[in-house]
Amino acid sequence: MSAPNYSFASDNTAGLCPEAWAALAEANAGRAPSYGDDPWTAQAKKLFRDTFETDCEPFLVFNGTAANALALAALCRSPHTQILCHETSHVDVDECAAPEFFTGGAKVIPLPGPDGKLRPAEVERALLRGHGVHYPKPGALSLTQSTELGTLYTPDEIRALTASAHARGLAVHMDGARFANAAAALAARGVSPADFTWRAGVDALCFGGTKNGMLTTEAVVFFNRDLAREFEYRVKQGGQLASKMRFSSVQWVHLLRDGAWLRHGAHANAMARRLADGLRAFGLRLIQEPAVNGVFVEMTPAVYDAMTARGWHFYRFVGDHGYRLMCAWSTTPAEIDAFLADLKQVLAPA
Amino acid sequence: MSAPNYSFASDNTAGLCPEAWAALAEANAGRAPSYGDDPWTAQAKKLFRDTFETDCEPFLVFNGTAANALALAALCRSPHTQILCHETSHVDVDECAAPEFFTGGAKVIPLPGPDGKLRPAEVERALLRGHGVHYPKPGALSLTQSTELGTLYTPDEIRALTASAHARGLAVHMDGARFANAAAALAARGVSPADFTWRAGVDALCFGGTKNGMLTTEAVVFFNRDLAREFEYRVKQGGQLASKMRFSSVQWVHLLRDGAWLRHGAHANAMARRLADGLRAFGLRLIQEPAVNGVFVEMTPAVYDAMTARGWHFYRFVGDHGYRLMCAWSTTPAEIDAFLADLKQVLAPA
Amino acid sequence: MSAPNYSFASDNTAGLCPEAWAALAEANAGRAPSYGDDPWTAQAKKLFRDTFETDCEPFLVFNGTAANALALAALCRSPHTQILCHETSHVDVDECAAPEFFTGGAKVIPLPGPDGKLRPAEVERALLRGHGVHYPKPGALSLTQSTELGTLYTPDEIRALTASAHARGLAVHMDGARFANAAAALAARGVSPADFTWRAGVDALCFGGTKNGMLTTEAVVFFNRDLAREFEYRVKQGGQLASKMRFSSVQWVHLLRDGAWLRHGAHANAMARRLADGLRAFGLRLIQEPAVNGVFVEMTPAVYDAMTARGWHFYRFVGDHGYRLMCAWSTTPAEIDAFLADLKQVLAPA
Amino acid sequence: MSAPNYSFASDNTAGLCPEAWAALAEANAGRAPSYGDDPWTAQAKKLFRDTFETDCEPFLVFNGTAANALALAALCRSPHTQILCHETSHVDVDECAAPEFFTGGAKVIPLPGPDGKLRPAEVERALLRGHGVHYPKPGALSLTQSTELGTLYTPDEIRALTASAHARGLAVHMDGARFANAAAALAARGVSPADFTWRAGVDALCFGGTKNGMLTTEAVVFFNRDLAREFEYRVKQGGQLASKMRFSSVQWVHLLRDGAWLRHGAHANAMARRLADGLRAFGLRLIQEPAVNGVFVEMTPAVYDAMTARGWHFYRFVGDHGYRLMCAWSTTPAEIDAFLADLKQVLAPA
Repeated sequence: MSAPNYSFASDNTAGLCPEAWAALAEANAGRAPSYGDDPWTAQAKKLFRDTFETDCEPFLVFNGTAANALALAALCRSPHTQILCHETSHVDVDECAAPEFFTGGAKVIPLPGPDGKLRPAEVERALLRGHGVHYPKPGALSLTQSTELGTLYTPDEIRALTASAHARGLAVHMDGARFANAAAALAARGVSPADFTWRAGVDALCFGGTKNGMLTTEAVVFFNRDLAREFEYRVKQGGQLASKMRFSSVQWVHLLRDGAWLRHGAHANAMARRLADGLRAFGLRLIQEPAVNGVFVEMTPAVYDAMTARGWHFYRFVGDHGYRLMCAWSTTPAEIDAFLADLKQVLAPA
Repeated sequence: MSAPNYSFASDNTAGLCPEAWAALAEANAGRAPSYGDDPWTAQAKKLFRDTFETDCEPFLVFNGTAANALALAALCRSPHTQILCHETSHVDVDECAAPEFFTGGAKVIPLPGPDGKLRPAEVERALLRGHGVHYPKPGALSLTQSTELGTLYTPDEIRALTASAHARGLAVHMDGARFANAAAALAARGVSPADFTWRAGVDALCFGGTKNGMLTTEAVVFFNRDLAREFEYRVKQGGQLASKMRFSSVQWVHLLRDGAWLRHGAHANAMARRLADGLRAFGLRLIQEPAVNGVFVEMTPAVYDAMTARGWHFYRFVGDHGYRLMCAWSTTPAEIDAFLADLKQVLAPA
Repeated sequence: MSAPNYSFASDNTAGLCPEAWAALAEANAGRAPSYGDDPWTAQAKKLFRDTFETDCEPFLVFNGTAANALALAALCRSPHTQILCHETSHVDVDECAAPEFFTGGAKVIPLPGPDGKLRPAEVERALLRGHGVHYPKPGALSLTQSTELGTLYTPDEIRALTASAHARGLAVHMDGARFANAAAALAARGVSPADFTWRAGVDALCFGGTKNGMLTTEAVVFFNRDLAREFEYRVKQGGQLASKMRFSSVQWVHLLRDGAWLRHGAHANAMARRLADGLRAFGLRLIQEPAVNGVFVEMTPAVYDAMTARGWHFYRFVGDHGYRLMCAWSTTPAEIDAFLADLKQVLAPA
Repeated sequence: MSAPNYSFASDNTAGLCPEAWAALAEANAGRAPSYGDDPWTAQAKKLFRDTFETDCEPFLVFNGTAANALALAALCRSPHTQILCHETSHVDVDECAAPEFFTGGAKVIPLPGPDGKLRPAEVERALLRGHGVHYPKPGALSLTQSTELGTLYTPDEIRALTASAHARGLAVHMDGARFANAAAALAARGVSPADFTWRAGVDALCFGGTKNGMLTTEAVVFFNRDLAREFEYRVKQGGQLASKMRFSSVQWVHLLRDGAWLRHGAHANAMARRLADGLRAFGLRLIQEPAVNGVFVEMTPAVYDAMTARGWHFYRFVGDHGYRLMCAWSTTPAEIDAFLADLKQVLAPA
């Protein structure tokens, strides 16, 4: 009945989480050196290393498109290269050819795969394409964790893919726009962030801050430090070096230091499960069982239109009947319940 | 029985045709201004205009990859663009991402289609992909005439594609690496070069010289003169401006002025038909009826190996049993007959 | 005597101004559509148009390097172009070749000129260089207002430069990292923001938010709307489209709506004058009379070292004896006085 | 009196030398594998190694702009780099920003130096510019041998520059558009091609074929083989891989195998000296004593106009009175004498 401005459109329509807000306030007291020579940046770097239990090399940039494109440029190192990715991946379908632009002309090659996930056989088949210099050489394999369809790679699946990639000369990139959701889900199975990144062969991770409740900050974390060489120049030339970097770093300090990033991820995941349970109870078909914070469900366009008319905001995603409902760190049980209550009315026969 | 070094591997393994050779000799007498300020370049430009019956704007570059990539860059005008092409097209699979490089990061999108040809429905479906600025905007549609599978678009088919493209903001490029073969085949049906290029809506044509018997020269012919603006700068910056341009221009003069280019195309096409007839007579299945100078035929790997062992050179092209045999301006009936004689022995039961 | 962590190193070591902070708090209440479909973005666009008294086209990006480089790419439209700028300009010496990168290969050409300012004669002399396609064609002229040496172009000076530029095919870019300081200084002479931008022939302005007290936001304002065509795609492909754009827009709303941006600029300028007056009173030579918020003064390295030892932070800028002291929106009279008090002790004979 | 179409405009207005012509004829007999899998390409590679007495890695491309730009891209390896060169160098003033384009955005920095030559002090001073990531990192030093002013670096001068460059992280490129002229002049002093290239620290050489009498071929010779890694992909993606490569290779075979390249260089140099002696005898001032095949002389615009009216073609090069007269492999003593005879009449008082 009510039509609040609640939204399941994206996990980036939420605002800043309390920890991020407190962090900004802390950094805003007084002056500090610019371009990363401040104490928070050093502290954030240490926290990334602690989080991943390894001497990784983290860099902060402004958004996910830049993080992915710059990381891929660093992994490919030249424009005459191939970037393999899943056909639903953000780097192929949602970044306006930013990877092609930042690499200076690499070829992004979308590959099929069930559940939004790549498999080694698909990667190997792709690498048979072309002959010699007439086709770009293997550059990078890009994996999305969690995927665009709300699924998760297991560490074993990642390991199989990275082994196959490395054997063929591809460096491995992980798009972790929703890394926190993935890490929270995997933590419940006893899998650490290290386990499904560098220990599974990932060379560089884009660790999303925005969808985790932060403002204008994403981290590019190099586990393969050779590939981080000169990355600071790429960041600067790419228009991604913050003069007031402390405002980015301080947010990571507040989110990483006591696990708030994981708690927010876990909360969003739990909200998605609550929502999925409600939808299933109404007899709607879930396209994927929600592994993280996205719910993919089938409904008729008429139902969608009726929900939209009641002020709910979410997107059609797959075919004509597949819809995506995203939960965020800020989603509340009350929002879920209000949505389900409205949906019940919409679905009810006259 | 004999095993000469005859080759059906490609139409660029042939040497220079007599007219091209005579042309080079003519240009080599004495000095001439560089960078196109010579009399042959002016004459060649006029001959292109006569050939196409319109005030087109031709430019000469060194090879087909550069011709295609520079033309596409001119048609797209910016890196945040899509280039649509057939999934077998040279611009996607044989140019090492040169279109991505010369455009500065456009996305080349391969599309399926029977017989190596695109259809408007496929183009329109492709343009539904992506939303707003998150996906590159329509840039160029690239058609290959004759196609990589040795087929031809009719003028009506081209017109339907260009109408669809122009309505959606795509400029239209024609990769004419084998334009002479296409033009010769269509001339037999009363279709002129103008009819299946600008009259059918093509904005820019890459007119292949190399496969027509010339040395290191391809023409980029703009029918849409607006899109030719500043192209001379692209050519120079792209490393494609010949200082001794007269040696390129003079070849076009000699080939275009009395139709030698068409005669060479027609000859290669006729040789392909002779070869196809012979193969069919042996009971081999032709994958495509040869419309131009390529013959696509099925044979077993064992037969292929036996022919290779006898010194014949050609490539596997489709699947495990599809082979391509290319004829050139220089292919002789005797070569065809020798090939067929050897094949007869190979195929003969003991 | 005291050694606080006061800094005159840069105007980007300051934090966020109160208006920017209040703005962030306002945007953080609840959810809002992403990518600019929020109410603040619409409001900010209107305020830019009001501020400049014209139907300009503003875009928001993250930092100054990206703003300049993307704007120059839009003005040049192709990589075979020249960008003329002053030899002290940020686009040449402080952006790691970002303009070369974002244009895809334009040539940035630094020119001399007294007081950090270009003159038409210098621009015209530069354009005599090169011949035809062997040199890139005129693309853009970049002016910095206020300049890197703390000086100001008058509207007449700008008009003379833009007239000269437009006559030669150069579009005109203004790097306004310190636009607020310039506008405040010129307002005191009765010159409006419109007067020294579009009315003086500027095609696109990079309007700095960071140095005006905002967080991670700069505006690219196109007065020549033709040149803004497709800029939204450049922003996205360039990794500069904020998903949570409301946090950028809301700051502009709060700064522009009642002139806070100008007050902050005027305050920083006033602090620079107070500082300059003090330095002059000590007998130090000012390299430039401060027109805006930077003070350029000569002192000995020994004096500089002594001040550094007392905790003051600022940079050597010109030669061995020229130092730069930057004031910000947050600089207080007390800071100035503390600096001068320390300097007095340093300068005092035993 | 006579006004033949003789030209001293450039050494690329000449045609093909007899060896190049014979080479083309040889390659034109029959078919051969494309893309360098022919016997001449293998032979040419061996001859480059013999000529330079080292296991260098040569590649053939079409023209000098592409050779320089691709070589610099290989040496810099990334777009966030500086390329230092002399302010008269072809890579800065005559290639339409091709180095910027092929590197994807490197900054080309022209430096002054007497006689068209760089000195270590100038290189080192240039490298003081910029701070940290705010300025592109050292990429490549480009030297031109012989220079654009017809002068020569000695091996010692080159060694001093390459030592300085390597110590600062710059790879060293030599633009040898007129390498044959330089080699011939230095051979007379007992200096071998190896002595003033790799033995003096040069990493990659662009060895000009066009100005030595060949058609559409230049060699990029890597002495530092690490830097040649993946260069074959750059060549292909850059539109510089010849399908009929044998026609390029065979010319190098014929020119290199018995020293014809050096004889042509020596001849052009001798013609320049004959011309210079004649000019000096008329009392004209030589701007540079000709070390190779270019004569730089002062004359009045009136004299220049009168010579032009008599059909002689050459260019103003420095200031208002400095003119350049280039000799080629094809220049004859009779041409020189005819020029001097005409000039005598022009200079003669009534």
